[in-house]
Amino acid sequence: MTELRKDPITGRWVIISTARTKRPHGFVQEPMNRGDGMECPLCAGSESLTSPEILAYRDSGFSNDSNWTLRVVSNKFPALRIEGELGKAADGIYDRMNGIGAHEVVIETPDHDIDLFDLPERRFQDVLWAFKERILDLKNDRRFKSVIIFKNQGFAAGATLAHSHSQLIALPIVPKRVMEEVTGSKEYYRFRDRCVLCDILMQEMEQKSRIVEETAEFLAFAPYAPRFPFEIWIVPKRHQCAYEMINENQARALAAIFRRTLRRLNIALENPPFSFIIHSAPFEERADDYYHWHVEIMPKMTRVAGFEWGSGFYINPTPPEESAKFLRELPE
Amino acid sequence: MTELRKDPITGRWVIISTARTKRPHGFVQEPMNRGDGMECPLCAGSESLTSPEILAYRDSGFSNDSNWTLRVVSNKFPALRIEGELGKAADGIYDRMNGIGAHEVVIETPDHDIDLFDLPERRFQDVLWAFKERILDLKNDRRFKSVIIFKNQGFAAGATLAHSHSQLIALPIVPKRVMEEVTGSKEYYRFRDRCVLCDILMQEMEQKSRIVEETAEFLAFAPYAPRFPFEIWIVPKRHQCAYEMINENQARALAAIFRRTLRRLNIALENPPFSFIIHSAPFEERADDYYHWHVEIMPKMTRVAGFEWGSGFYINPTPPEESAKFLRELPE
Repeated sequence: MTELRKDPITGRWVIISTARTKRPHGFVQEPMNRGDGMECPLCAGSESLTSPEILAYRDSGFSNDSNWTLRVVSNKFPALRIEGELGKAADGIYDRMNGIGAHEVVIETPDHDIDLFDLPERRFQDVLWAFKERILDLKNDRRFKSVIIFKNQGFAAGATLAHSHSQLIALPIVPKRVMEEVTGSKEYYRFRDRCVLCDILMQEMEQKSRIVEETAEFLAFAPYAPRFPFEIWIVPKRHQCAYEMINENQARALAAIFRRTLRRLNIALENPPFSFIIHSAPFEERADDYYHWHVEIMPKMTRVAGFEWGSGFYINPTPPEESAKFLRELPE
Repeated sequence: MTELRKDPITGRWVIISTARTKRPHGFVQEPMNRGDGMECPLCAGSESLTSPEILAYRDSGFSNDSNWTLRVVSNKFPALRIEGELGKAADGIYDRMNGIGAHEVVIETPDHDIDLFDLPERRFQDVLWAFKERILDLKNDRRFKSVIIFKNQGFAAGATLAHSHSQLIALPIVPKRVMEEVTGSKEYYRFRDRCVLCDILMQEMEQKSRIVEETAEFLAFAPYAPRFPFEIWIVPKRHQCAYEMINENQARALAAIFRRTLRRLNIALENPPFSFIIHSAPFEERADDYYHWHVEIMPKMTRVAGFEWGSGFYINPTPPEESAKFLRELPE
């Protein structure tokens, strides 16, 4: 069982395990066992090793059989549990609540050895569509205030299973970083009556120096103030506050540019560990006018150290103009 | 040369190298070369390999000779440079300024093979005193708004040199995380007319379950909502807003409890990589009433992944009550 606890100074929430804890010697970490497909719980044929499927795409066949191309299941070791009451309570000056939430795994392919960006474009699109379907379903649970969708690939980026997958976490609160973006966008809008990311798109398309690729629907670019070398954002040109608003055309267009961008990064940085996160408006926020959903991709090439933790101030050795140029000029 | 750039959505500043950039293949990182003392620029006898000393403690002898016990020098590859104008400017909707600041290295010992927490208590106290002396000096430069003091030990925590050292970065802005703490403390004060960390100390001393060690002047405890397993804070019992206000007695008392806490962590987690950061009030903030300086120690036992980056929401497998108990009960 887990508990949500709030830091009374900064308002930061953390998820704390309160049950079987890791003793100090339990932290030794083994690099992932790539290629050991026989015991992988995410492979086709191992359906009985996962929780029952919540969503699956298959051309024919039955629930939980092996004939699928994409599967969404509950995390077997969830950070949060779906059953129960929030149990919000004070503990002296501190705030806590039960670890209620959803923690799901999107198994992107039945094949153990294929990376997300090596899937055919149509299967990549399925992954993006599954994200949308799951958000729409989770939104019906009134306890949840936001969903974080993310992928970690590679041990250094935090992945614990080699088989290609992404994750969804639905939360009973709006996390701090999400709220910061919402507040920042809202303030910009109040001041200028325009969406900040729409303005950013305008400037990027004019200056061109940080663009990786532009399509009819999306812009992939290195942001002006990136935290990490080769950090890339993919932003819809059309103003939309929430990811789950995408239609089929947009999903197809996003799959194309997203897949190509990951392939570029994979070539440029030689199979780097990376994370991506979908930034989308929280459920109860009436953010239609001022918030703009987007994807942030962060290759993990540098180590984040004390200075960054203490200050929220990042040192980045690669100017975005250079990383964008490098990626833009790669042969396809 | 570096540039400071601001993200227009969240207000986060980053330091971007604009000169010799790392090409993609430049990111391969070698683990540190421990024990190769002959080429270490921080060792006694290698004074000519560093910038001239800014501060040094020695019983006798001359500037820049080898007869020192502690030395502060400018970083040879500084993230920020001390010379020049801030050059604040707009770039369309973006904000930038020149990479002005100070980046100094505190060489904690002339001996290549000794860890900070294995120094005699008196030498540990010298390190703490050097921090104070450097802050007081840097504060005279009116361009600077805050100083971050931190140490990274071990490759996974971001250290690039094995020889024991800590770092100071003086900044022409107040970083986001620092401002968050200032703002949070100020709001708490406005609401209750009390300092939030003073209230935390009261509750911790009453509940006792998260205390690692209590002395006359300081409390070392696991915070209620820690981001990381075995995260420990050391807080002065006397209300003080800025680190540089400590007197000699306090420095002596802090050296004792700080050194013991690091030794406990080193035993419990078997020589873990870790960072510590001193949290202190920004220079121009009139924070005497509501801000409370302290030290945050973060062993690096888990990997921070996409979810944490995207949400500012941490998953911690170790309850602070358990880590505190474990550390408290260690034989000295």
